[in-house]
Amino acid sequence: MPRYFLELAYDGSPFCGWQVQPTHQRGMGEDPRRERISIQEQVQNAIQEITGEPNTVIASGRTDAGVHAIRQCAHVDLRRAKLSVDRLRGGLNAKLPTEVRVLRVLEVTPEFHARFSAGKKEYAYYLSVGLPLPHLARYVWFLPRDIDLKAMNEALRAVVGEHDFVAFQGRRAGTESTVRRIFSAKVQGVKMPLGSAAPLYRISLVGSGFLKQMVRSIVGTVVEVGLGIRPPKDLERLLTERNRRSVGKTAPGHGLWLERVWYPRRFGI
Amino acid sequence: MPRYFLELAYDGSPFCGWQVQPTHQRGMGEDPRRERISIQEQVQNAIQEITGEPNTVIASGRTDAGVHAIRQCAHVDLRRAKLSVDRLRGGLNAKLPTEVRVLRVLEVTPEFHARFSAGKKEYAYYLSVGLPLPHLARYVWFLPRDIDLKAMNEALRAVVGEHDFVAFQGRRAGTESTVRRIFSAKVQGVKMPLGSAAPLYRISLVGSGFLKQMVRSIVGTVVEVGLGIRPPKDLERLLTERNRRSVGKTAPGHGLWLERVWYPRRFGI
Repeated sequence: MPRYFLELAYDGSPFCGWQVQPTHQRGMGEDPRRERISIQEQVQNAIQEITGEPNTVIASGRTDAGVHAIRQCAHVDLRRAKLSVDRLRGGLNAKLPTEVRVLRVLEVTPEFHARFSAGKKEYAYYLSVGLPLPHLARYVWFLPRDIDLKAMNEALRAVVGEHDFVAFQGRRAGTESTVRRIFSAKVQGVKMPLGSAAPLYRISLVGSGFLKQMVRSIVGTVVEVGLGIRPPKDLERLLTERNRRSVGKTAPGHGLWLERVWYPRRFGI
Repeated sequence: MPRYFLELAYDGSPFCGWQVQPTHQRGMGEDPRRERISIQEQVQNAIQEITGEPNTVIASGRTDAGVHAIRQCAHVDLRRAKLSVDRLRGGLNAKLPTEVRVLRVLEVTPEFHARFSAGKKEYAYYLSVGLPLPHLARYVWFLPRDIDLKAMNEALRAVVGEHDFVAFQGRRAGTESTVRRIFSAKVQGVKMPLGSAAPLYRISLVGSGFLKQMVRSIVGTVVEVGLGIRPPKDLERLLTERNRRSVGKTAPGHGLWLERVWYPRRFGI
């Protein structure tokens, strides 16, 4: 039973997120015709169309509705299929909507697991200022006025290290450990060739793992520091107090990008 | 009768181009329900909704279907309206689809004309290599293999100066002079923060004016040089021979961006 590694890029805008939504979590009274499909379902359906096999695609982690990925990693087990990696990649890109692309397919050992083998991950959050430019509106969070990067970097320093991030997780989160290790956290101005009419800022967070909505919650709080609504020292206090109600407003999903997942060298990825 | 200057950004993907299509130019047998609206109509309709006045918006130049603009310039005369520039800008952004944004509105003298007062314009064409990444597929032309920037820059040097660009214009073009002056033409690699999984190249052309499809025709030919299909010397030869059938395939509209229009200082724009 070969295991395949998949590297995916996707524009999260038209999807309800990575994961297939269990029926009981779907909103009551929602018009089912307006319901958006998950990226996981899109990929699984495409694989089934090609191989005839029902299958489950496991990603390095879920991404929320509207969140994008430039190098999401996943794996899938195929029982009967004897497909070359090139044919699987080509077939998937022919079947999938253009918002999802399969960049790489590799055959990997059954020890590889897209989620449990992941060493660390990098998320980037993009910010800009002023009127949302048409070609960036779905990928960048546009703020009403400019932000203080120095104050934001001071606040972000408090996040680095091992902390209990319980205050920075989404409401309907699980009950496992809420301790995570952040290796680096910073914000910097980046040059944007397309749409140079506005500044572009990138907040990068590299960590061992992230709780549900943790990056967006940290970003929302740090943006309040950048706008002068909170002092930079607040992040340190919030991590100690661990009170969800004291943190900033969760930043919108559309500015968030899963940019990189690291695996141990032995997997050859 | 006040004249207003408008600075616009638009994602050209959902539109049939800048200009209102005269009925006789519409394709026979096209399903009229599938017909796409022009950006000019969108802006004119929004102004009419706000002011109640029929109006004509004149741009610095037309852009074709799928072509984007980051700083398109235009003007409009409003007879009865006594609107502040801020209210006009705010009202337009509230009425227009998010693919069109009005970045600036100024009141200008009646001597200002968005097309005839323009001194020079800059177009940029974006190229990348490999699988079209979802968030860039509408804005960048993805090529099957990497290109030779040195050879392309050598070819682009032939374009600089005053030349008869008759071979590089679209088929159904007008009969006016086909001589244009190009001030600079070059290609370079640019850093792309979003979607760093692929290289990004930018061809920039600054000129006094451009014929219909001239930039896309030059880009298509120069890309053939970059792919090794033609020698760099070809551009010089094509400009001398002036034979439309010898030039390269016109590059697709979606990689093209109108990035800047210059006006004389006296207009205060």
